[in-house]
Amino acid sequence: MPSTTRKNVLLVYAHPEPTSATRHLVEIAIQTLEAQGHTVMLSDLYGMGWKAVFDESDFPIRVNPERLAFIDESGHAYATGSQTPDVEQEQAKLRAADAIILLFPLWWFGMPAIMKGWIDRVWAFGLAYGYQGAGNTYRYGEGGFAGKRAMLAVTVGGPDIDYSARGINGPLEQLLFPITHGTLFFPGMQVLPTFATYNAARIDAGRMASIESAWRTSLRDLFDAAPIAFRTQNGGDYPDRHVLAEEVMPGRTGLEAHIKA
Amino acid sequence: MPSTTRKNVLLVYAHPEPTSATRHLVEIAIQTLEAQGHTVMLSDLYGMGWKAVFDESDFPIRVNPERLAFIDESGHAYATGSQTPDVEQEQAKLRAADAIILLFPLWWFGMPAIMKGWIDRVWAFGLAYGYQGAGNTYRYGEGGFAGKRAMLAVTVGGPDIDYSARGINGPLEQLLFPITHGTLFFPGMQVLPTFATYNAARIDAGRMASIESAWRTSLRDLFDAAPIAFRTQNGGDYPDRHVLAEEVMPGRTGLEAHIKA
Repeated sequence: MPSTTRKNVLLVYAHPEPTSATRHLVEIAIQTLEAQGHTVMLSDLYGMGWKAVFDESDFPIRVNPERLAFIDESGHAYATGSQTPDVEQEQAKLRAADAIILLFPLWWFGMPAIMKGWIDRVWAFGLAYGYQGAGNTYRYGEGGFAGKRAMLAVTVGGPDIDYSARGINGPLEQLLFPITHGTLFFPGMQVLPTFATYNAARIDAGRMASIESAWRTSLRDLFDAAPIAFRTQNGGDYPDRHVLAEEVMPGRTGLEAHIKA
Repeated sequence: MPSTTRKNVLLVYAHPEPTSATRHLVEIAIQTLEAQGHTVMLSDLYGMGWKAVFDESDFPIRVNPERLAFIDESGHAYATGSQTPDVEQEQAKLRAADAIILLFPLWWFGMPAIMKGWIDRVWAFGLAYGYQGAGNTYRYGEGGFAGKRAMLAVTVGGPDIDYSARGINGPLEQLLFPITHGTLFFPGMQVLPTFATYNAARIDAGRMASIESAWRTSLRDLFDAAPIAFRTQNGGDYPDRHVLAEEVMPGRTGLEAHIKA
């Protein structure tokens, strides 16, 4: 049964065309979530003119004006409150969010640059990594975004068969592992299975109706569906915090070993 | 024995700090390749102020001014010679290149946004995908960049153990599969194994000397080393161009099934 508690949901999306499939999914998400009583926050990256490139202008007050080391400057800017206002505003939304949904067209099997730059800049040292100045003590299931849920909604040009278990592109969820596991679960979010829309450039009315219906169902389950069962760093599967224990899926290598069967 | 033919090599790199490990690898690459008689071309993305965001300003002459569909506009701009000059210049370098090397710090298990935006904008429809207007007829081993070699050189904050076969982040080469397989091999490049520098924020002189030595060796082997044995779309392993034939690694799923054992 869907949760009836009112929550805050942040939608971050990366498509400039109002009639695109990505933007259509955004509109449906707003309607569906608000109809449930949730509060929706938006980060329309193209509309905001989001600065994609992480560079020296992200650090108005440098800890080391001589040499730009991103980790050092990010940690300093976050700790001293000297980040740029656009980054602070996104972090404030994240702090308020119980769930975030990233909606984007899959370009070259990853995020459009504008969304990658949202991650690069907003995922600060001390918050999304190096949490509490404790190195990698808290990561993969714990960290600055623990307690939040996350989901990707991707629109894909190609057909689903190309992304199937033995499809030529590789399985979609494995291609997205650097994002779901490495970017969202790393700082503690619980990540739901990806909502994928294939053949996104050619959607007729009939197929759109079934996509909409499936999307509404996913949205209603946002706080109830089982997340991807990524193994937590500190749950026992990685005794040294680096490598899977021998008894965990013995001999198995690769990305899927990090998901509980 | 290293090849003695003179070649053109394009270095594309994404770090603004001249003393960074990434930039140090660029300097060594220039020296080493030029010492072999090769011609080196550079794309210093931060230095060039590369525009990362793929948007309507990439299409000065629209095929459809009413609705921004990236694939349609990219194909039209490429076919009619109406791309922006910065994109045309990068494509000219690529056309002249026998090999390209992408050098970047691994941020959130992928490229910095500025480099992702180089791919998003330069990898045009008709050139890097939809080659010859023939849909997916030519991809994965064939296409607009066939005959060229490619290599990634990544600097990584964490230790190598985290990226080992059973390391907590996942194996590095699998995390990079969307780039090596999906971005470079897709339009036909032969992709070499990644050159990775771990613990890149803390490199003392002794370790730097051994990194430099290994890097010079990789560079000298650029045209001779065996590429990653990705399966070609049209070589028989994908009879329908979508899914691995049943007899290819029967029952095996996941990214590694797309590499010959």
